[in-house]
Amino acid sequence: MEELIAQVVRRLATLSGLPTGTSRPPLPIPATTLASRIDHTLLKPEATPAQITALCAEAAHYHFASVCVNPSFVALCAQHLATTPVIVGTVIGFPLGATTTSVKCFEATEAISHGARELDMVLSLGYLKAGELHAVAEDLAAVIAVGHAAAVRVKVIIETALLTTEEKITACLVAARAGADFVKTSTGFAGGGATVADVALMRRVVGPTVGLKASGGVRELTDALALIAAGADRIGTSAGVRLVQLAEGVTLSAPVV
Amino acid sequence: MEELIAQVVRRLATLSGLPTGTSRPPLPIPATTLASRIDHTLLKPEATPAQITALCAEAAHYHFASVCVNPSFVALCAQHLATTPVIVGTVIGFPLGATTTSVKCFEATEAISHGARELDMVLSLGYLKAGELHAVAEDLAAVIAVGHAAAVRVKVIIETALLTTEEKITACLVAARAGADFVKTSTGFAGGGATVADVALMRRVVGPTVGLKASGGVRELTDALALIAAGADRIGTSAGVRLVQLAEGVTLSAPVV
Repeated sequence: MEELIAQVVRRLATLSGLPTGTSRPPLPIPATTLASRIDHTLLKPEATPAQITALCAEAAHYHFASVCVNPSFVALCAQHLATTPVIVGTVIGFPLGATTTSVKCFEATEAISHGARELDMVLSLGYLKAGELHAVAEDLAAVIAVGHAAAVRVKVIIETALLTTEEKITACLVAARAGADFVKTSTGFAGGGATVADVALMRRVVGPTVGLKASGGVRELTDALALIAAGADRIGTSAGVRLVQLAEGVTLSAPVV
Repeated sequence: MEELIAQVVRRLATLSGLPTGTSRPPLPIPATTLASRIDHTLLKPEATPAQITALCAEAAHYHFASVCVNPSFVALCAQHLATTPVIVGTVIGFPLGATTTSVKCFEATEAISHGARELDMVLSLGYLKAGELHAVAEDLAAVIAVGHAAAVRVKVIIETALLTTEEKITACLVAARAGADFVKTSTGFAGGGATVADVALMRRVVGPTVGLKASGGVRELTDALALIAAGADRIGTSAGVRLVQLAEGVTLSAPVV
């Protein structure tokens, strides 16, 4: 595996002018409870405003890191969470990553104006598959620049379920070089979610200074703790309430960040 | 069923000021071959530029009505299909329908500037579920206005797999009132696709002057012909080449449009 990573690093080094990103805002302070690692997530297309309101109340009650909702609900969440430390997060180019860069940037700009402080964007999977890494990197760097200009963190979803090992390594390296604050495993809409093996691989590739979010299908406490042990700083899940109830009193050892 | 439709019609009539749409461009001339009813579709997030190029070549060869691709490939398709009668179609707010109206309008405007002549938009399912029909209608009417200003047709995806019968009826009526050129069953990403029962219901609700597209999981010739017999003007499928090869020589009786 180390040899494969080294091979990809060498190949990327030959691509002159691959966009590099703006500097990253500092990552959050170490999170020592499970709740403070959770992005409380509701991205189902049929979610109603009332369900989103309930999501916000739960996030405030359990002290989750953030809520993660679709763009049409950012303003509603920002209103509900204004007096709490819970961050409003949203998704960009989601879940296919196949909108244009200018649409992703427009979406990011508007979401920030509505109160979003974290953006989970999907990279251009088709261009990654085609080896058109300049196109991939330019798309990421443009959205990351929009985020960083407002001190908003950008997470790059690589959609592990659709990638080979080499593509996962390439995606992580291109995202880190483009300035991503986090790499993230999955949208939850591609038939596969976070695995311990993928999280461990992604952590090895990006090193200790880039955040890592594990998401997609995380519903059991043992899974969440194993993903954190493998290197995840954040867990994206719709089962956060159940997880923290199960984990009551558990303090995480060896926080990664 | 007729009584349920009548009930929904009466309830909608009490909602004063529900946005009504701009006038529709005329529907296409009657399509009497299977190929001329097919939107040749490739919306998988990992589709590569080379696969999209092949899709365009097939669409031109088999005389499909259109190609249906993600927004990042509209310009590529417009280039490949410039000298053919094949329409370039794309998707807006896809597949969740949960981006904001302004993002959908920006996406539509850019897609048209890149060469798209048909837009398949997803309605705001969460607001439909919540009964906030003004929000649903305003979202649709805004995108439809962008399309019609450029003589571009707009299809409204109601995502039947996630709706009750009453919600399907409501969605069709609101879409028709907002000026939709077509109502469309499915994105293909919500775990269910076009059924004959849904197509028959939607045709009864919207009447003969609104187009109807059946999409999602249409892979067998018998299914495609049954959907057309039930009222579908268009079939959205990634299996178009196989379907027309199976149908060679078949002329459709009783074209709906």
